[in-house]
Amino acid sequence: MAHCDPNKRTAHHSAEFKKKLINRLKRIEGQIRGVQRMLEDDVYCDDVINQINASRSALASVTKELFEAHLATCVLEQIKSGSDEVIEELKKTIERITKS
Amino acid sequence: MAHCDPNKRTAHHSAEFKKKLINRLKRIEGQIRGVQRMLEDDVYCDDVINQINASRSALASVTKELFEAHLATCVLEQIKSGSDEVIEELKKTIERITKS
Amino acid sequence: MAHCDPNKRTAHHSAEFKKKLINRLKRIEGQIRGVQRMLEDDVYCDDVINQINASRSALASVTKELFEAHLATCVLEQIKSGSDEVIEELKKTIERITKS
Amino acid sequence: MAHCDPNKRTAHHSAEFKKKLINRLKRIEGQIRGVQRMLEDDVYCDDVINQINASRSALASVTKELFEAHLATCVLEQIKSGSDEVIEELKKTIERITKS
Repeated sequence: MAHCDPNKRTAHHSAEFKKKLINRLKRIEGQIRGVQRMLEDDVYCDDVINQINASRSALASVTKELFEAHLATCVLEQIKSGSDEVIEELKKTIERITKS
Repeated sequence: MAHCDPNKRTAHHSAEFKKKLINRLKRIEGQIRGVQRMLEDDVYCDDVINQINASRSALASVTKELFEAHLATCVLEQIKSGSDEVIEELKKTIERITKS
Repeated sequence: MAHCDPNKRTAHHSAEFKKKLINRLKRIEGQIRGVQRMLEDDVYCDDVINQINASRSALASVTKELFEAHLATCVLEQIKSGSDEVIEELKKTIERITKS
Repeated sequence: MAHCDPNKRTAHHSAEFKKKLINRLKRIEGQIRGVQRMLEDDVYCDDVINQINASRSALASVTKELFEAHLATCVLEQIKSGSDEVIEELKKTIERITKS
């Protein structure tokens, strides 16, 4: 089974993997709603900033998991099937990850 | 009017400022729900990663606004009122911002 | 004794503090000469990248020490002497630190 | 010609490519010596921090060039020759680049 199709812009991760990431994103959504309440309740800035930082770190860890799965499946397959363009795509993705 | 009270862990930003940040956080929440749908719909990893990166950058810009308001009000007031401990707090906050 | 003069663009750190930072910078210089030799000797890219990363982290820790000294002396003094412009300067410095 | 040998920890970049990176590193060395003089001359902290940041950015751009060459040669070749371990190595390298 092919894992991704960069032309159709599709991926095929396992139901389990997708469920794990989606659950993490739901928790992050909850954290961000929590930040809104903190602002409404006039919580001290430093505590609010800490909570936003925690959400950013949690998002970075979702990116990390997804990117590692991407390397191990999509990128590997495309290179093996002779499609070197994936390297160009990879450079851009890494640059964006390091800048955001 | 005092802007913050670090002992009670409270801040007093204007209703307008809070509304602006809360609206931005609502949009970020929407982006994160969008990422969940992308995963469910088997969207290509690279496109999902871009969307997560966009949410991270948007959160960083909320931190930036809040931190600048914190500097210009809470930090300034505490230093002027002779409370130098805020400098220690500031070092930690900056360290956390640069690491997350 | 005044620690800094932002108009004359001068600072007055202790001889000991300056010596400590200068010694660290000399070590970083040595690391960077080491990287040049690694490239000349065809060392594996991954090992070269690790060495460059180590130098970047070492520079970040020099920035951190200097910035903390700056906060605790120059920034504090300027605010206490009624010069709020230092807050604007501080925002820019923090933004540059988080981006580089 | 093979570009790298991860077991012998060697790489084979062109003389021109190596010369370009080495020249950049020499300039960075010069910048770092400049920072030492700034500290000795009691230059204002903010200006010193800017100069250190500039050196860090310059090092990051050397990493970027080297890493892109690594992807396009070593990584590509190893995957094509059936050696999937390079993906594990790549994950670690990317993690280190994003953290330093």
